[in-house]
Amino acid sequence: MEPTGKTRWVIAEGYIPSGGIQGDRALESHETFCILNTGPEDARISITLFFADRGPVGPYTVTVPAERTMHLRANDLEDPEPVPRDTDYATVLESNVPVVVQHTRLDSRPESFALLSTVAYPAV
Amino acid sequence: MEPTGKTRWVIAEGYIPSGGIQGDRALESHETFCILNTGPEDARISITLFFADRGPVGPYTVTVPAERTMHLRANDLEDPEPVPRDTDYATVLESNVPVVVQHTRLDSRPESFALLSTVAYPAV
Amino acid sequence: MEPTGKTRWVIAEGYIPSGGIQGDRALESHETFCILNTGPEDARISITLFFADRGPVGPYTVTVPAERTMHLRANDLEDPEPVPRDTDYATVLESNVPVVVQHTRLDSRPESFALLSTVAYPAV
Amino acid sequence: MEPTGKTRWVIAEGYIPSGGIQGDRALESHETFCILNTGPEDARISITLFFADRGPVGPYTVTVPAERTMHLRANDLEDPEPVPRDTDYATVLESNVPVVVQHTRLDSRPESFALLSTVAYPAV
Repeated sequence: MEPTGKTRWVIAEGYIPSGGIQGDRALESHETFCILNTGPEDARISITLFFADRGPVGPYTVTVPAERTMHLRANDLEDPEPVPRDTDYATVLESNVPVVVQHTRLDSRPESFALLSTVAYPAV
Repeated sequence: MEPTGKTRWVIAEGYIPSGGIQGDRALESHETFCILNTGPEDARISITLFFADRGPVGPYTVTVPAERTMHLRANDLEDPEPVPRDTDYATVLESNVPVVVQHTRLDSRPESFALLSTVAYPAV
Repeated sequence: MEPTGKTRWVIAEGYIPSGGIQGDRALESHETFCILNTGPEDARISITLFFADRGPVGPYTVTVPAERTMHLRANDLEDPEPVPRDTDYATVLESNVPVVVQHTRLDSRPESFALLSTVAYPAV
Repeated sequence: MEPTGKTRWVIAEGYIPSGGIQGDRALESHETFCILNTGPEDARISITLFFADRGPVGPYTVTVPAERTMHLRANDLEDPEPVPRDTDYATVLESNVPVVVQHTRLDSRPESFALLSTVAYPAV
């Protein structure tokens, strides 16, 4: 299929609760960047995190192969550093080819089990 | 009414939990593509699914009549193959006439009853 | 303030559960069209509902005064007819001046208490 | 990083429940404006609130430093006046430089624990 989407996406909301169900990956509190690359060329994604009280951290880099989707958990980012829990952050994703990005959180704190999801803001 | 919307829509998020309430269609875990065709001509919709570790599957085809809405459950797609449960996927919907698409999930796993919904990304 | 937004908005998702908490307006199952008119002129809003198996119904008409917001419950629409419960529908809102529209559902069925919200699709 | 986004954002939905968990800031009912300033210049944000039955209130002003995010709770706004609870409102955010805005509510009323979030409408 032809490439679809934009090359820069922004998610102003970001927060991974440290609490919630443990030991069941599907249900632990997490945030996910859902990335779709419909085109014939691999997408090299560069992720930068922004915080309230210190400078940006990154880039984190991943590759989404041609005609594949990747649902990347922010919880799994490790290099250059893990995403701190219970901390406000925001995210910019940049790609060398057009992609589409959607952001989802599952919050499994016992008092607040909930899902949220929204298409990211397509900047470019 | 005149046609409204776009002819290609993208939903990067996709995941149907296998768990949840059984035997009550309204409350079983499901994902829905809500499609609105405001125009005077039937909309022929072609749906392609993308996965993390294999090539695209499709097209699935449906027709949304003129001046009608269809809330199509991904759970009900059968041809060319059912949508696998507990599996990350993404969706592209293409139409011969402009339509509007919104995506909703109801997750009725006992630990995580929740709703999410967002307008799909309008690519074209 | 100057007028802000668009004059046609589309919400492809629509569903009012008949079940849920009764007797507490804040918590009964409902859907809301949140309309903001930032401009100096009253906004005359015309609402048309679309269904899966019959023709469009409307217009429902409301006025959002200059520099006011109206959070209009679909549950409260009466003329030309109430919105059927437990029924898939979709909505087009048209305004004589630019407005911004967001759509929210509160689902208070005992098994599925949840909120969803998304900005509507701005068509014109 | 270069500036990203728009200079006027609109959130037609707004409602802070007075009920819910007390004494735990993370879990009390709240609404948040998540603002990201990716650029090299501080963003001066001016916030105006709209209501159903009285004129606009504001401006509330905050500064989001260069290359920082601010997750600003509507609950914390005090000047020129606090945001009333259990009251429909809507919000316009204006910035001197491009920013991205996302809106989130956490509703912790015992009967309705839920999250909602959506990217705001980018007007300019």
